[in-house]
Amino acid sequence: MPRVSDARERMVIAAAALFQQQGYNGTGLTQILEVSAAPKGSFYHHFPDGKEGLAEAAVRHAGPAITAWVDAAFNQSSSFEDGIDRLTQSVSEWFDRSGWSGGCPVTSVLLDTAPGSERLRGACRDMMADWARRVEFHAGRLGAHGDAEALGLAVVVGLEGAWVAARARQDDVPFTIAAAMIKALPAQNATRAPIENSPTLG
Amino acid sequence: MPRVSDARERMVIAAAALFQQQGYNGTGLTQILEVSAAPKGSFYHHFPDGKEGLAEAAVRHAGPAITAWVDAAFNQSSSFEDGIDRLTQSVSEWFDRSGWSGGCPVTSVLLDTAPGSERLRGACRDMMADWARRVEFHAGRLGAHGDAEALGLAVVVGLEGAWVAARARQDDVPFTIAAAMIKALPAQNATRAPIENSPTLG
Repeated sequence: MPRVSDARERMVIAAAALFQQQGYNGTGLTQILEVSAAPKGSFYHHFPDGKEGLAEAAVRHAGPAITAWVDAAFNQSSSFEDGIDRLTQSVSEWFDRSGWSGGCPVTSVLLDTAPGSERLRGACRDMMADWARRVEFHAGRLGAHGDAEALGLAVVVGLEGAWVAARARQDDVPFTIAAAMIKALPAQNATRAPIENSPTLG
Repeated sequence: MPRVSDARERMVIAAAALFQQQGYNGTGLTQILEVSAAPKGSFYHHFPDGKEGLAEAAVRHAGPAITAWVDAAFNQSSSFEDGIDRLTQSVSEWFDRSGWSGGCPVTSVLLDTAPGSERLRGACRDMMADWARRVEFHAGRLGAHGDAEALGLAVVVGLEGAWVAARARQDDVPFTIAAAMIKALPAQNATRAPIENSPTLG
């Protein structure tokens, strides 16, 4: 028997996984409790404000796992470009292994709840900002050309777009395209001076 | 009183708009019927297989509106790059005017239903492929450098990624970044020969 003290963590992990596959609105509390094998009585103890509180915890649990994915890809790479290839390929392979059902755990909550829930939108925005800042750090460390802050957001835009398009196509081509688009930004900055129409983050 | 013969069209338009804001699973039939002011009896007459059939019609209704958006942007532009700026800006402005609530009508159905519904995944894939082919046509017509087919998919990836990230941030920066990423692809191809790591659609 799982320990009762693990119930909160099990509910958060189950919620994050189910939201990825079915979206926030497509996932009921009953299913989350079933999958997590958590006693129903403990749900409102841990999440007195209900499903929204659980969803915030799920987003804040899943977000750092993607940050760790970013770090793992760049820490194994000797250039920004290699890191981008490694990151996009690892997300793509994982998504393929899930049968193209494991969407982004943050997007799956965001699209069902924003702008209605400022609390959940804020959590999703924070996670995406963390990923961008991690990419920005590695871009600086690895000497990527161009605006590191813009490269950070470019990775979020490219990954999220590929994650959506690959769900429709059920192949890895959108991730290959996303990698090419991201890598083209510093390449362009390296070959053009002065930089024209450089994206700025206002 | 609206004519009964308009009921099907009103239901499709209402469903597409509500899915954009709330997702497929977050939108019930009751609300669709209320918004469309359609008689309940006519729903199963027009959609004997229920909500899934209505959602397919909504996706196939909303998709060509975005194709028309692509055409409008490129038809007013004298270069591929101008067309990309115009397209990303018009989607961004529209999204801003909706209070960052009007997500992509295709993605909002896709993420809630694929891979479970092969019928809806197929409809979403078809719409995205149509957008990509339209961009590919304009890229060729306007003499954009590089692989026009890859540019078509790059626009889908960039737009969808920006649409997601802007929902979290509630600003237009992701669209600016998406435009820069897309435009960097042909710029890179124009300045490098032979093209390295060119994305292919194999």
